[in-house]
Amino acid sequence: MTKKILINNATILTMNKNKDIIENGVVFIENDKIVDIGKEELKNKYKKLENLKIIDGEKGILMPGMINCHTHASMIPFRTLADDYKDRLKKYLFPLEQKLVNNELVYIGARYAISEMLLSGVTTFCDMYYFEDEVAKAAEELNIRGILCETVLNFSAPDAKEPYGGLNYAVDFIEKWKNNELIIPGIAPHAPYTNSDESLIEAFNISKKYNVPITMHIAEMDYEWNKYIKEYGLSPVAYLNKLGILDSNFIGAHSVLVSNDDIEILKANNVGICHNIGSNAKGAKGVMPILKMKEKGINIGLGTDGPMSGNTLDILTQMPLVGKIHKLFNKDRTILPSIELIELATLGGAKVLGMDNKIGSIEKGKKADVILLETESVNMQPIFDYYATIVYSANSSNVDTVIVNGRVVVRNKKLISGNFKDIRSDMINLTKKIKEVIEK
Amino acid sequence: MTKKILINNATILTMNKNKDIIENGVVFIENDKIVDIGKEELKNKYKKLENLKIIDGEKGILMPGMINCHTHASMIPFRTLADDYKDRLKKYLFPLEQKLVNNELVYIGARYAISEMLLSGVTTFCDMYYFEDEVAKAAEELNIRGILCETVLNFSAPDAKEPYGGLNYAVDFIEKWKNNELIIPGIAPHAPYTNSDESLIEAFNISKKYNVPITMHIAEMDYEWNKYIKEYGLSPVAYLNKLGILDSNFIGAHSVLVSNDDIEILKANNVGICHNIGSNAKGAKGVMPILKMKEKGINIGLGTDGPMSGNTLDILTQMPLVGKIHKLFNKDRTILPSIELIELATLGGAKVLGMDNKIGSIEKGKKADVILLETESVNMQPIFDYYATIVYSANSSNVDTVIVNGRVVVRNKKLISGNFKDIRSDMINLTKKIKEVIEK
Repeated sequence: MTKKILINNATILTMNKNKDIIENGVVFIENDKIVDIGKEELKNKYKKLENLKIIDGEKGILMPGMINCHTHASMIPFRTLADDYKDRLKKYLFPLEQKLVNNELVYIGARYAISEMLLSGVTTFCDMYYFEDEVAKAAEELNIRGILCETVLNFSAPDAKEPYGGLNYAVDFIEKWKNNELIIPGIAPHAPYTNSDESLIEAFNISKKYNVPITMHIAEMDYEWNKYIKEYGLSPVAYLNKLGILDSNFIGAHSVLVSNDDIEILKANNVGICHNIGSNAKGAKGVMPILKMKEKGINIGLGTDGPMSGNTLDILTQMPLVGKIHKLFNKDRTILPSIELIELATLGGAKVLGMDNKIGSIEKGKKADVILLETESVNMQPIFDYYATIVYSANSSNVDTVIVNGRVVVRNKKLISGNFKDIRSDMINLTKKIKEVIEK
Repeated sequence: MTKKILINNATILTMNKNKDIIENGVVFIENDKIVDIGKEELKNKYKKLENLKIIDGEKGILMPGMINCHTHASMIPFRTLADDYKDRLKKYLFPLEQKLVNNELVYIGARYAISEMLLSGVTTFCDMYYFEDEVAKAAEELNIRGILCETVLNFSAPDAKEPYGGLNYAVDFIEKWKNNELIIPGIAPHAPYTNSDESLIEAFNISKKYNVPITMHIAEMDYEWNKYIKEYGLSPVAYLNKLGILDSNFIGAHSVLVSNDDIEILKANNVGICHNIGSNAKGAKGVMPILKMKEKGINIGLGTDGPMSGNTLDILTQMPLVGKIHKLFNKDRTILPSIELIELATLGGAKVLGMDNKIGSIEKGKKADVILLETESVNMQPIFDYYATIVYSANSSNVDTVIVNGRVVVRNKKLISGNFKDIRSDMINLTKKIKEVIEK
């Protein structure tokens, strides 16, 4: 029996090529796909179908599910630890992970993080962490789309005693999940400076062999830039290009420190870039040259980075930051109007992940990944510009309904694809254990 | 009969001098004041009192109500209009106001804006607009603390046909409201460049005569800086100092363009400064040198600016922005830790408004302006650092209970000091009228 959902009485921001907005719009979903989109009258065509689930949009805003292009979801148990710590990655975070990260933590963390994403309207995320098999289980269970990439490091990792053990883990992981409906497995050399040339090339070859994503932190750290300039006379991006590992499967996170030449390289190799403004700002890393990159036609999406760095997984928090910080840095309030920020969060992200034929907009034939924002709450009125309302007024609490791959996973602001009470209780118990370890 | 409220089962962030945090804390309120604060056991002392209202904090976080030191609340009917418009104040906003602003709009706008503030945990706001009498009525009705300052301009204003008519309005307004429990009336010359020397001095004299606040946009605009440098060889702040109108009743909004000498002037005159980071960023105005100003000991609070400029009245949205943007600009992730950001939003604001003897912290004898954040929602866990949770994870939907001057105005996330359904319906109807005028 096919599943059928009809959503009516909503303003549809399609994010299609014409950026059509349909007031009093209707969307008809069958199984995992958007089958029809139209005005109010379209309801008549479908309303008498048997087993039809009708969702009254209550004058809310229906938009494509948001895409979080870079995170480490399972780091959520560490949120609010050492926020303002100097040289945090090497001096605090890596040692903490060595002590604490195991498959249980990753699973509990992933379930909690995925709940937070779904509840805030994120329907697809690209993850980089350890024990990605646990993340995949949680993603499948709670019904979120995941591009899940196993980390490769030049030192002993929580899930691989030997340096570069992530390479083997990744191959097994990819084999296991490669045909899943919701999960796309991939590989993630952590960064150029935490890998050897050989491991970078091997990771690239694995990505190529299986035609799966490869993601990496690139051009994020001052010390990274300095190392490659000093040792090779090349920027990090130029160095990776010289290794021959940049291609359209490559998803570069951060890319704060990129030269004009680097931008040309990224474009020439069709690399997708994830902009993590919140984490980059909070970590005082710098500002990615988004205008130049957009001008060159590079595919750009938004990410939150891990919730220990950006403190959230919610893309609604990132859009206004992208607008505000770039307007400020460019001394021009007219740049990056709200519609472009919504595009970065939806279709832009889909392009970065190579999935824009499937997700990122509300169009016939695309996967049914859509979210409904209510407009009843005080922060959501008045609305002269739907895009501006979403970017500059909305927060995660306005997300009323979320559908991923045709399945309703959030309704009336509650998670329904999982038992949030249990998910939360697991997190609270885990937090107690972490506190004990830290306070030792 | 005295009103008595006991709040228990909450973590109290007192924001007192020692920054005491009391887990499983209890606060006892009598009438408008905080009478007692302590640990769990304190409940026994009060729990048998007659007519005692007990509020179970449900393991939430109790903190001082937040203070919005600069806004134009009644501009909320214009939210999402012309967000990315160049030279917006002069070319779009002033003309729009001439057409549309009347006492009805100000009242409807103020009621809606005050609802948004209370629901997001703002218990005190400093307003600058026209028809401030309407704002005062709305503030008294909904029970928020308001420092309400009537605008003075060198051209015809919506509530004063003659230039500088705001001066007379302000005197009447101050006389009417000067003895109110919740309202402090004041005067607001719009900016140095929209006033004459005479009107600035007269406004200052009114402020001095009645010992009420005077607030002004200062050092916000490039053209403002250029004008004063070119015409007088002085910065805007130095110019105002030369006029002799800076004193401890003076609340300067923005202060983006200030030199080191200006900072000395502001300190020497004990001027309070309201930092409006969201509006300043979105409008590409620049970044106030907050570190230097803090170092000099200037009193600094946070503001949202008008909801047509900053798109919100919610101080929870401003704290993370202040942290992130200044960390980024100073290339130092260790500056402005969360506790300092919470202080800006509470006690800092109270100092700016000259009210730190009454509000801004949870201490015995202070006014009972407190808010309770729930920690049940997904974004509010885990908590290793309460301050970081509030700054980098919380949003307005986590505000569960708000008490102003000893009266519960928000409970279970609902406004109870007013009928929000009516307040919203008035706004929706007003929005329709505005659309008609704009689309003409």
